[in-house]
Amino acid sequence: MKVDGFGGGEICAAEEEATPTENPPAPVIGTEENERDGEELFVPPLNFAMVDNGVFRSGFPESANLSFLQSLGLRSVLYLCPEPYPDPINEFLKANEIRLFQFPIDGCKEPFVNIPEETIREALQVVLDARNHPILIHCKRGKHRTGCLVGCLRKLQKWCLSSIFDEYQRFAGAKARVSDQRFMELFDVSSFKYTSFS
Amino acid sequence: MKVDGFGGGEICAAEEEATPTENPPAPVIGTEENERDGEELFVPPLNFAMVDNGVFRSGFPESANLSFLQSLGLRSVLYLCPEPYPDPINEFLKANEIRLFQFPIDGCKEPFVNIPEETIREALQVVLDARNHPILIHCKRGKHRTGCLVGCLRKLQKWCLSSIFDEYQRFAGAKARVSDQRFMELFDVSSFKYTSFS
Repeated sequence: MKVDGFGGGEICAAEEEATPTENPPAPVIGTEENERDGEELFVPPLNFAMVDNGVFRSGFPESANLSFLQSLGLRSVLYLCPEPYPDPINEFLKANEIRLFQFPIDGCKEPFVNIPEETIREALQVVLDARNHPILIHCKRGKHRTGCLVGCLRKLQKWCLSSIFDEYQRFAGAKARVSDQRFMELFDVSSFKYTSFS
Repeated sequence: MKVDGFGGGEICAAEEEATPTENPPAPVIGTEENERDGEELFVPPLNFAMVDNGVFRSGFPESANLSFLQSLGLRSVLYLCPEPYPDPINEFLKANEIRLFQFPIDGCKEPFVNIPEETIREALQVVLDARNHPILIHCKRGKHRTGCLVGCLRKLQKWCLSSIFDEYQRFAGAKARVSDQRFMELFDVSSFKYTSFS
């Protein structure tokens, strides 16, 4: 099955018309074991969402997520953890010619939280460069590091703080950190130039 | 200030360079009272998010949200409540030539929940028609009615149920309903045709 675009691919008429008395469709080569009515299913990564045109966010991708990620047609991935990728992810990036931008930020827990401002500045610059789109921003759970970076982008997009925090909390849930929200509040975006993504 | 695209508009250099000793910038005509460093701020509606290319979701828009909504360049709004709009919203739609699709679904509470399948089918057909994009889907809180419609779209996009429920719960939070999730699970998408949005 051709996979194109965001969650793309057309419904295959042949599959639709299959009845239980017929032979089940042959498994699709190279896909995961997730099926519904004999059709391949997409498994987005934990905490996956679209941030803006050409910008996505999520938690750490697993092997089960790769066919979905392939459907996004990513040009780059912005990875916010210090740990190296497992082999399947590295191979996926290579096979799909996806550029990796890794900005190592330790996943500290409160009260030892320290989101490094300079690193977020460099990462935000990568996100703002439309030549890197479509881009996936991710960390481990898609809550704190990713949430802070997206929050800084929202600030640049002139969202009011309460809306920025609302979005942050939607992904962080019970793990929301006041320190992250203070970081976003104090983050100075005046040196960045932003024009809307298209 | 020109407002274009998603959260659009460029940072104004003149505003950046303003110092506290200078006169404050004149208020921007026709905008809300939300400012940070003399710049107009965008106030996205409650539970606002991008669903896919050209598709947005939210809770009920208030007057404070209108300049943000204008920045989305909406072509249509899909409104899932039976109540008529207040005048400011009707005027906004008219002034911006935004087409309104209203599908009245009562906002019942459990255990009296009844998401009408045929209405969701008609609404989904509107969402799938790219001629209506950019489109904003909304109900009152952007949780149940909007969540069900987006969940049905995800099913058509072949997301696995656990990811559909994860997204639904991110917006519904503590108000998540098993009945909504059952509705999405049982919703038959085989009669719809979907090609990825671009």
